[in-house]
Amino acid sequence: MQEYPHHYTVAATVQSEGHVLLESAALTPIESAPPPEFGGPEGYWSPETLLVSAVADCFVLSFKAIARASSMNWISLHCEVEGVLDRVERISQFTDFNLRVTLEVPAGTDEEKAARLLEKAENACLITNSLKSATHLNAIVTIAK
Amino acid sequence: MQEYPHHYTVAATVQSEGHVLLESAALTPIESAPPPEFGGPEGYWSPETLLVSAVADCFVLSFKAIARASSMNWISLHCEVEGVLDRVERISQFTDFNLRVTLEVPAGTDEEKAARLLEKAENACLITNSLKSATHLNAIVTIAK
Repeated sequence: MQEYPHHYTVAATVQSEGHVLLESAALTPIESAPPPEFGGPEGYWSPETLLVSAVADCFVLSFKAIARASSMNWISLHCEVEGVLDRVERISQFTDFNLRVTLEVPAGTDEEKAARLLEKAENACLITNSLKSATHLNAIVTIAK
Repeated sequence: MQEYPHHYTVAATVQSEGHVLLESAALTPIESAPPPEFGGPEGYWSPETLLVSAVADCFVLSFKAIARASSMNWISLHCEVEGVLDRVERISQFTDFNLRVTLEVPAGTDEEKAARLLEKAENACLITNSLKSATHLNAIVTIAK
């Protein structure tokens, strides 16, 4: 199942006026535009928010896989990611990703183990591993009532 | 308009069963899952395809901005991006992005200038500038009939 390398293809199409259409085989297309601070309209996914989505998505899916492999029960996981776009030597790039994570687990769960698995998910995330940026994890484990 | 740094926030939420919900203020949520080769179902955006989308999207939007600044007329731009996910020293990461680009311009356009602006868009793309991966641009300029 995990034969490397894997290949992922997405096509972006745009006319001189109008939004960008993002398409990949069998997936619902996404309509995109620049974010408002770069002159775009409100309400569209942008390259910036798509990248931050990929980080948040990868973190929670990495955790799911790691928790399954460790036979750890959990209830829900919420991961808010803030990506910081800055200029480094006059080049615009993402310098930092701040992950604020809340994991809800059933009563009786080993909270230290849960926290360790969250750290492991951060290290396993193939999106942040592909980025130059620094990643900062701030995780809370809560016990369900 | 372009005061740095900029901040982009996206939240991923998941329960121990079911798909990931990706949400960002004022945007239509995206439902996501791992890609089929990592055990996911067909038909969902994944961290991998979202990252490749961000690259394709950023390239075409960078070109739009650069063409406008250079007062170059063009008709349409299609950018197919293949992201290669491989293992480097046992760590999964994107190693290469192959961009196959077709730009359609009106008759009478300076094709060399158009090709130069496509290269400039590749260099200006803030997503690939945030990635460790190598980027390879293969561009064709076609003249509209």
